[in-house]
Amino acid sequence: MINIILRGCNGRMGREITGLLEEDDTAAIVAGIDISISSDNKFPVFYSFKQCNIPADVIIDFSSPVNVREMLDFAIDRGIGIVLCTTGFSKEDQRLIEEASKLIPILKSANMSMGINLILKLVKEATKALSDAGFDIEIIEKHHNKKVDAPSGTALAIADAINDALDNQYEYVYDRTNIRAPRQKKEIGISAVRGGTIVGEHDVIFAGSDEVIEIKHTAYSKAIFAKGAIQAAKFLPGKPAGIYTMNDVIG
Amino acid sequence: MINIILRGCNGRMGREITGLLEEDDTAAIVAGIDISISSDNKFPVFYSFKQCNIPADVIIDFSSPVNVREMLDFAIDRGIGIVLCTTGFSKEDQRLIEEASKLIPILKSANMSMGINLILKLVKEATKALSDAGFDIEIIEKHHNKKVDAPSGTALAIADAINDALDNQYEYVYDRTNIRAPRQKKEIGISAVRGGTIVGEHDVIFAGSDEVIEIKHTAYSKAIFAKGAIQAAKFLPGKPAGIYTMNDVIG
Amino acid sequence: MINIILRGCNGRMGREITGLLEEDDTAAIVAGIDISISSDNKFPVFYSFKQCNIPADVIIDFSSPVNVREMLDFAIDRGIGIVLCTTGFSKEDQRLIEEASKLIPILKSANMSMGINLILKLVKEATKALSDAGFDIEIIEKHHNKKVDAPSGTALAIADAINDALDNQYEYVYDRTNIRAPRQKKEIGISAVRGGTIVGEHDVIFAGSDEVIEIKHTAYSKAIFAKGAIQAAKFLPGKPAGIYTMNDVIG
Amino acid sequence: MINIILRGCNGRMGREITGLLEEDDTAAIVAGIDISISSDNKFPVFYSFKQCNIPADVIIDFSSPVNVREMLDFAIDRGIGIVLCTTGFSKEDQRLIEEASKLIPILKSANMSMGINLILKLVKEATKALSDAGFDIEIIEKHHNKKVDAPSGTALAIADAINDALDNQYEYVYDRTNIRAPRQKKEIGISAVRGGTIVGEHDVIFAGSDEVIEIKHTAYSKAIFAKGAIQAAKFLPGKPAGIYTMNDVIG
Repeated sequence: MINIILRGCNGRMGREITGLLEEDDTAAIVAGIDISISSDNKFPVFYSFKQCNIPADVIIDFSSPVNVREMLDFAIDRGIGIVLCTTGFSKEDQRLIEEASKLIPILKSANMSMGINLILKLVKEATKALSDAGFDIEIIEKHHNKKVDAPSGTALAIADAINDALDNQYEYVYDRTNIRAPRQKKEIGISAVRGGTIVGEHDVIFAGSDEVIEIKHTAYSKAIFAKGAIQAAKFLPGKPAGIYTMNDVIG
Repeated sequence: MINIILRGCNGRMGREITGLLEEDDTAAIVAGIDISISSDNKFPVFYSFKQCNIPADVIIDFSSPVNVREMLDFAIDRGIGIVLCTTGFSKEDQRLIEEASKLIPILKSANMSMGINLILKLVKEATKALSDAGFDIEIIEKHHNKKVDAPSGTALAIADAINDALDNQYEYVYDRTNIRAPRQKKEIGISAVRGGTIVGEHDVIFAGSDEVIEIKHTAYSKAIFAKGAIQAAKFLPGKPAGIYTMNDVIG
Repeated sequence: MINIILRGCNGRMGREITGLLEEDDTAAIVAGIDISISSDNKFPVFYSFKQCNIPADVIIDFSSPVNVREMLDFAIDRGIGIVLCTTGFSKEDQRLIEEASKLIPILKSANMSMGINLILKLVKEATKALSDAGFDIEIIEKHHNKKVDAPSGTALAIADAINDALDNQYEYVYDRTNIRAPRQKKEIGISAVRGGTIVGEHDVIFAGSDEVIEIKHTAYSKAIFAKGAIQAAKFLPGKPAGIYTMNDVIG
Repeated sequence: MINIILRGCNGRMGREITGLLEEDDTAAIVAGIDISISSDNKFPVFYSFKQCNIPADVIIDFSSPVNVREMLDFAIDRGIGIVLCTTGFSKEDQRLIEEASKLIPILKSANMSMGINLILKLVKEATKALSDAGFDIEIIEKHHNKKVDAPSGTALAIADAINDALDNQYEYVYDRTNIRAPRQKKEIGISAVRGGTIVGEHDVIFAGSDEVIEIKHTAYSKAIFAKGAIQAAKFLPGKPAGIYTMNDVIG
């Protein structure tokens, strides 16, 4: 049984994780850290790690990038790892995290979904095999009409993975309506579609001469990010200090 | 048996039509009009309508917008209709065509494919049913990497058909990466994907709350435009004077 | 404001409707009928229509096919319509419903989703336009791995709508692995895919010579059936007696 | 410059290869072997390898499984490799091929397309990562209405690759309409869609809890098989004796 301290337990993703773990008999939440306390938590919740004296095997952090040092100190003190699902860390925070990773295992990923992380691997491999054969690569992502940024962070992560496999020589093109010219070889086109309540779709298209390969991910709910975090929390205990990503979990 | 005069018989689309009609026993080419003469034509070919004295039921024009008047005069003189697949007419040419349509039937469409013209009808109907229910509408088109314009003329024709059903109050959005804001209600997003040798794909997405409807057309070869022209040539003989579109052929 | 009596208010779909109406200011639930009483209902709930004395404009029924007569009597007595989302009625029940429809408006549909009902309309229209042109029609449906029946009722309803437009001369083919022969003209292929938690996808494929048209519906949650029922409940009040379907709501 | 002897040069695929090599300046056909001689061949064509005295680097065989021994003897005698695109060999032929592979390099694949062979690799990798996480795997293939067998050989090759990664414990299910039961864990569903002139589509679906991954290949013409053969012909010269597959070419 893996005992988890869940930071951000009363946020949207914290509740998803709590719900999923209620039906899991290999991992459980033993304590929560949150500034908002809720009456229906079935485990003790603390305002800060400083008050928390519950033994645990790992921390999942789905909160905001404040007081990172406090969490890192707690983890180092206990010698346990952290699954870091929070984003938007400052340069200073990132330095702290890196330093902590010399003492404890820390897992950090742009997107916690198992599926998206597998897609990243497959796309890299396809890129290596197909780009020399003259295939063009394009990405289409679809999200709900409330999303304010475009393209999605995940679409950019996919594009970066592709570009990385191509010695970073490709440019991202978001709009072709201003240009009257054939497609350039070293382009990655990225299209962002917005509508309704679409949770998230990412489609990577490898278009060659008379054949097209597509690698596509469809998310039906945000629960997949919670599941990925749990998967990571089960993976991390006992691992040597260092920075890990979801790729290590997929194996 | 429908007897056809084919203008532009030795061009790319002219040859497609010739090939398809060789296996058709309800229509045949009785004469061609082309400035380039080829040794393998199985029908008489003339440089100009002025030399042509072969009786026919209809003209298919897949050439360039020059000498339109000559063709119109010939058709009016014979009292036969024209399937006009050429694009890029000048204002003056368009006036001539309109005037001729008072005397003979003329069929004119942005896209000759049966499938695309059906899509246009279905999309209009879906728009009427869904836009009040809060569905967002987006278009994705995909074409080969040699295509110089974006979005495709057909994608714009689809967007115009949608907008027409919405009292033309919607704006077309080609790029969302510059804006950090949720999608506006009165937008139609249009994405253009380019790669490989893709002949042409048009996907219209109606995204609502928890459900998505898609109406999609995939072209596998340019033969579909030739087939549409033949379909139209079989439809036109005997029809009253006027302007027709592929919609009339679909019925 | 449309006042609704909700039969089956504490079932899965009843709760969906309740949730959606909490944020709707043009319709509200004024009473519920259910054999299970829950402490968190914000409206009075009765075991049976006999105890209910609350005035209302329409009934939504998402329960089981028992005691239909009691509900019909209540509606006839009050002169209000019924949105009948329950399925599995006996012959006798169906006779009662038909008789009641001479006195009150009753709406009855195999699938309450607006989207699916629009799909049915579009597919019929496409069938009429394309079957003469030699297009083959195939249906693919995808559902979660717990679904016990195949193909889905909705896939069959789509196939029936297509067949109806083809004078019912087509046969449904579920498996082609036993036959070594080309596809017969008068077939409608139906494929059922099962996996994960897929809520429901229906894809109708019209495959012609060098072009394919697809009309596709994707459901992301069962809320769409609740929404359709509400839409119907807003449509029905004031309509003449008779049997209605979701098609009448779409208009 | 790679010099190729093309066996079956006047068949459908032989002509595709000839056409593609006319615009290729790194490989060329120096001789053809075919029982039908055509006037438009731009290289010498022989009825049998026995008459052929032209030096070459490699043989491409896209013919029928007759006289394999003659071809193998010729290749062994010259010390050159063979790209074997012919299928349907007898047990005895297969033994001969295997024996020859101890002396010369022989490349042999169920499907010569680069894309399909990449798909096979990606699907295997995805299977390993996802099957433990409870994802269900289904395959949909689409082909033209003249195809007599179902499912396609390529779909079966994909299923076998998946099953191989799962210790061959999975069963293939082609029809679910006879069963009223939830999907079994150790199933691979395979659906065959037939219609129009569809060249070939293979879609592998990994459906998990709230997420779906798809790996899809679309062929737009049979030229992709010719291209794969040429790719292989450029790869083989100089390789040690042995059996190779397209996987070795992709690298």
